[in-house]
Amino acid sequence: MLASIRVRENKAAMKTRDRIIQTSLAMFNEQGERQVTTNHIAAQLEISPGNLYYHFGNKQEIICCIFEQYALQLEQLFKPTSDPSLSFERMMNYLDGTFSLMWEFRFLYMNLVELISRDEELRERYQGVQRRLDTWIMELMQRLRASRYLDGKDNDILQLSETIRLVIVSWIPFQASKSTDFKVDQATLYLGLVKVLHIMLPFSTPTSRPHSERLIVHYQELARHS
Amino acid sequence: MLASIRVRENKAAMKTRDRIIQTSLAMFNEQGERQVTTNHIAAQLEISPGNLYYHFGNKQEIICCIFEQYALQLEQLFKPTSDPSLSFERMMNYLDGTFSLMWEFRFLYMNLVELISRDEELRERYQGVQRRLDTWIMELMQRLRASRYLDGKDNDILQLSETIRLVIVSWIPFQASKSTDFKVDQATLYLGLVKVLHIMLPFSTPTSRPHSERLIVHYQELARHS
Repeated sequence: MLASIRVRENKAAMKTRDRIIQTSLAMFNEQGERQVTTNHIAAQLEISPGNLYYHFGNKQEIICCIFEQYALQLEQLFKPTSDPSLSFERMMNYLDGTFSLMWEFRFLYMNLVELISRDEELRERYQGVQRRLDTWIMELMQRLRASRYLDGKDNDILQLSETIRLVIVSWIPFQASKSTDFKVDQATLYLGLVKVLHIMLPFSTPTSRPHSERLIVHYQELARHS
Repeated sequence: MLASIRVRENKAAMKTRDRIIQTSLAMFNEQGERQVTTNHIAAQLEISPGNLYYHFGNKQEIICCIFEQYALQLEQLFKPTSDPSLSFERMMNYLDGTFSLMWEFRFLYMNLVELISRDEELRERYQGVQRRLDTWIMELMQRLRASRYLDGKDNDILQLSETIRLVIVSWIPFQASKSTDFKVDQATLYLGLVKVLHIMLPFSTPTSRPHSERLIVHYQELARHS
């Protein structure tokens, strides 16, 4: 009897913890992380601040938890496969996955340096993810070259990989700095993919160029209708 | 007699005002804008906080003054000329000027969205500069095409212009996010120019390609020896 109550309590606690993370993420994305306090989050969830503090010591702990989910999804998306080449369909999976990540965790991109400069542990965790991502994107570009989707010398591919990562990580603050309320919508994020495809275009091969151009039109359409 | 005293006082006041701006800029660049208070600035200048407040109501007013100097230098650098083509030497002037601006005002690039989101007037001023800069860089690329330095369709040139501006404005936070102390050195900024030249390279013409490659080596050398 007692044991079953404890199980139920643990489940309820777990549920509250998850709800705190999900609600915080939604509020950070909507209002900007700086505008949202733990009291706002508790009020939104209709729980007491004490209940929130039972699960998280402060807002930074919630941010770290959200960052872990982000890092996990990033790892699942870009984890290298044994296949040295890359199909056109797999390429679209990467682009769609990148868009989803950028949209789901958009507040993280907004003010990254400030977020990680507050927290030594988060900085180290972020820089670890960043280094692995450098390697993964480089491997991805090499696989695209192996499947004759891209053409270029080693240094071209290296530069291209770095530019793509820079553009993706900077796209949200760059676009936000043009608006009055510093917000971005889904259309803006799709246009980020269009930008990445445009940067790859000069390195496309005669056979892959029509595919790339079709992909550009595809994401331009999604931007128009989102 | 009285008039000449007043002139001297005005000159002294002007000097103090200039010294506040110069010292603040140096401290913001060195320590990061958030770490520096008006009290720190007054202490560094060996003046009283009251004397500082005689010239500036708060730190944000100093930032706005620094931003005006930045905008002025940017305007002088990129102001369109009547010449539709662009020489190789003039091209180097733009690159050197861009480097100087990035280095002299590096704190502005570090946390731009946050800086302008605090201040409605600064946001509008920044977005005005940003829109003009969009036009200027686009005109610059068109002039490079007119002088057969670049080759590409209108949309290529448009995309290229946007990418270059995105890369320049994002280079400092992107590189800072890789370091432990969130600082950038001159070498990192020269490598930003190398990156811009690499992005232009696929659009270079057979005659301009050797020039571009020489420029890349030139700025790589400067990065190595700075």
